[in-house]
Amino acid sequence: MTKKEITNWFKCLQDNICKGLKDLDADAIFHEDLWKREEGGGGRTRIINNGSIIEKGGVNFSSVEGDMPANLLKVLKVETDTSQPITFYATGVSIVLHPNSPMTPIIHMNVRYFEMSNGLWWFGGGIDLTPHYIDDLLAKDFHRMLKNVCDKHHHDYYPTFKKWADNYFFIPHRNETRGIGGIFFDRLNDTNGFSKMERWNFVKEVGNSFVHLYAHQVNQTKELKYSSNELNWQRLRRGRYVEFNLVWDRGTKFGLETNGRTESILMSLPPQANWEYCYTPKINSLEAQTQSKLKKGINWLSN
Amino acid sequence: MTKKEITNWFKCLQDNICKGLKDLDADAIFHEDLWKREEGGGGRTRIINNGSIIEKGGVNFSSVEGDMPANLLKVLKVETDTSQPITFYATGVSIVLHPNSPMTPIIHMNVRYFEMSNGLWWFGGGIDLTPHYIDDLLAKDFHRMLKNVCDKHHHDYYPTFKKWADNYFFIPHRNETRGIGGIFFDRLNDTNGFSKMERWNFVKEVGNSFVHLYAHQVNQTKELKYSSNELNWQRLRRGRYVEFNLVWDRGTKFGLETNGRTESILMSLPPQANWEYCYTPKINSLEAQTQSKLKKGINWLSN
Repeated sequence: MTKKEITNWFKCLQDNICKGLKDLDADAIFHEDLWKREEGGGGRTRIINNGSIIEKGGVNFSSVEGDMPANLLKVLKVETDTSQPITFYATGVSIVLHPNSPMTPIIHMNVRYFEMSNGLWWFGGGIDLTPHYIDDLLAKDFHRMLKNVCDKHHHDYYPTFKKWADNYFFIPHRNETRGIGGIFFDRLNDTNGFSKMERWNFVKEVGNSFVHLYAHQVNQTKELKYSSNELNWQRLRRGRYVEFNLVWDRGTKFGLETNGRTESILMSLPPQANWEYCYTPKINSLEAQTQSKLKKGINWLSN
Repeated sequence: MTKKEITNWFKCLQDNICKGLKDLDADAIFHEDLWKREEGGGGRTRIINNGSIIEKGGVNFSSVEGDMPANLLKVLKVETDTSQPITFYATGVSIVLHPNSPMTPIIHMNVRYFEMSNGLWWFGGGIDLTPHYIDDLLAKDFHRMLKNVCDKHHHDYYPTFKKWADNYFFIPHRNETRGIGGIFFDRLNDTNGFSKMERWNFVKEVGNSFVHLYAHQVNQTKELKYSSNELNWQRLRRGRYVEFNLVWDRGTKFGLETNGRTESILMSLPPQANWEYCYTPKINSLEAQTQSKLKKGINWLSN
């Protein structure tokens, strides 16, 4: 498949996910911004605000191209003949949804394709869940569904990509994970006996699984009651989400440092976040229970 | 003066500033945490919460020491004989205050001293102001008072350090300054005909000016009325403050990446911050006027 076919499929994925979210949250209004990038390409940013389920979020498509910056080759550790100018092409869909209810998790998904004029290409992406309150059964459901998606393509995918997500969605300065993880993968190409078609079929399956995965989390939590205590905790957890995205997320950092479209990149930030010095949840509280589970290496499937 | 004398003076400065802030805001309660660093040294973190003027803030003292990491020598571009192990000593006072009122500015100050066992040493620091609403006369007062502090020591200090602050307290991904700047300086040593004592006297003068500088801003703004519109704008501006500190502030980044004390470093974050996609102030509003002044190179003294 060509970059054009991949690009078109990602555009359709954005459409399908927006439709699916509209079914889940009839009050969610998408605001669309089309933007162009001076150096080449552009995007279709779709923002949700004040839905009955989703308080703030975005479903973004972009496809950008241009000359490959020399320092980017270094960052990516790509060894190539640089006597010829190299161009790149990158396309993908990125989603972050912050729900109104502290009982409903924040979700993030990204699927992307990257290629260079020197012939190198790869797919990357992932889905991860950040419950404000971790429910073991819902965490198990989430990971089971991700495992099903992965197992259709390779039995190594789930264990490998689950571990990768644990390591990626981690906040070193807090020594805690962002949430219950999920899957993360990068640089999937035609090595290790895989064909491009096989990688692409997997990436498509990940993209197509998104609405179903999140709808399950929403439907199981949307009727749960909460009070100001849960809302306060949600804002503190959103603060940690901000810390991860602004300090550690490679995609965000890269975007902000290379003159990306700021408002599209920072659609991932919550509507509101709080910070309290040395906040510690009460012993044995639900908040403390969640905090104790923000660790790498938990086998959520065994709960 | 020895590192011990400098350290003790910084400790007294912390005490004096806390007393001064207590006079300004009788309801401000300081919570003190003493902490030790495994590798050597420690600090005295003092946090304010829910004062009548200050909603959240910190006045932190620290003095840390240990082996100089090789990558830090690189970052600092220090060329030295590394066949011998090098140790470092760093001490200083850091302050960030987030007021309740959107009409009162956020303030930040840092004064610090750094030395290495190879004989290199320098002072650094700065004071900058982030009004949620820029008032030209109060901005002028702030810069005039800083210029007075600088002019007592060298006529080049204010213009040089004002420009440095414009460049340092800048948010590239927003193409705006954090606020109205102030002064910023680093690596002040005994080159260019200055003695260590002269540099130290200047740093002390900066530290001693803090309470007076901020008291003026507070006293001129604390009676001003505001409504939910101003509070909403304050939260958006606090969002930008978070973006600067987590994405661009070298001190914050360095601290978080080198296993500093997270809660002391992140005392600089506001109690609450908001993000709205593509928020644009109404034309000719006070918010739009402030936004238009978040630029480098403004001569606030001429207003």
